[in-house]
Amino acid sequence: MIDSHTIRVNTRGHCDIINITPQIEGILSKSKIEDGLVNLFVSGSTASISTIEYEPNLVRDVEEALEKIAPEDKKYHHRETWHDDNGFSHVRATLMKPGITIPFRDKKPLLGTWQQVVLLDFDNRSREREITVTIMGD
Amino acid sequence: MIDSHTIRVNTRGHCDIINITPQIEGILSKSKIEDGLVNLFVSGSTASISTIEYEPNLVRDVEEALEKIAPEDKKYHHRETWHDDNGFSHVRATLMKPGITIPFRDKKPLLGTWQQVVLLDFDNRSREREITVTIMGD
Amino acid sequence: MIDSHTIRVNTRGHCDIINITPQIEGILSKSKIEDGLVNLFVSGSTASISTIEYEPNLVRDVEEALEKIAPEDKKYHHRETWHDDNGFSHVRATLMKPGITIPFRDKKPLLGTWQQVVLLDFDNRSREREITVTIMGD
Repeated sequence: MIDSHTIRVNTRGHCDIINITPQIEGILSKSKIEDGLVNLFVSGSTASISTIEYEPNLVRDVEEALEKIAPEDKKYHHRETWHDDNGFSHVRATLMKPGITIPFRDKKPLLGTWQQVVLLDFDNRSREREITVTIMGD
Repeated sequence: MIDSHTIRVNTRGHCDIINITPQIEGILSKSKIEDGLVNLFVSGSTASISTIEYEPNLVRDVEEALEKIAPEDKKYHHRETWHDDNGFSHVRATLMKPGITIPFRDKKPLLGTWQQVVLLDFDNRSREREITVTIMGD
Repeated sequence: MIDSHTIRVNTRGHCDIINITPQIEGILSKSKIEDGLVNLFVSGSTASISTIEYEPNLVRDVEEALEKIAPEDKKYHHRETWHDDNGFSHVRATLMKPGITIPFRDKKPLLGTWQQVVLLDFDNRSREREITVTIMGD
């Protein structure tokens, strides 16, 4: 069995990290599939999905780590192609990849108590993001 | 068809990297599903799963790379929230994500000869980790 | 339903980043499965799969970011084990992981307009890589 949904999220960009756990829990609780895997995938080359203990200080820590890996103000070759200033966004997204697959049982994701699912928007402007939710199982 | 299991692993934390390939091969060999995908997911926000050529020197190399990305002794904002000293653990886990999906055929994972599946525990103390193993296929 | 294929790709190594989107679109368009998930997995411990806006300048930016994370000329402990000089390749592959799972609908992957699927070969020599393509869905 397969069940498919779309989540839309408005972001501010610049490493905006948004908790999407409530939306995923809501979709799973209403699905006819009780046990299986849920895949989350954000279309586009400047965003990612991961998990985190969602509290503001840790969100800042992750932002700072990504700023060290791919700083916003570095001169990226990508600028030479499109005059775009979001080279840092693309590099972060390629390193972190656009999706995640999470097991669920009895219609609930098997996350830890302090583990939330987040969308990370690395772009240099606000965006409306589309996340495809694909549920497979019994 | 879907088949579900749990692996429990005791870790020492501090970037403890543990080979879990034998457990996964054991579960796959006993499953009724012959071909498909196996998803491994560690609950919690301070651990990850990946693959590596599992030999002690390379394990040290990966530890050093992660220490450069998110050093243990950096001052993390996360400390201000809970007085926890495991900011580095959380940052590493969010960057590396908590799971992996691996194809298998004839009940064997399609890993390379020098490629083992590992749990990476980034926390700053010993833990008992729970890995959910979800097998889907024919 | 499950459908399984293999893609073979010749690479130059040294962070060779190759667009494999046409091969994946071709396989999906010929499959009997219309909607579901496609998993791509490269066997071996020195390569990865991700997505990127595939243009040469951005490819260079990603190469430079990975060179910063795990430089080619650093002295890796791995050398002490096998006298291999590809410690950097292994570290990059473990951090980025060997696979990706992408949703598809009506036999088309749900990628963004500027989002291509790429094989990243981190090894220090040319290789023939084998990517397992596993399609699941209805």
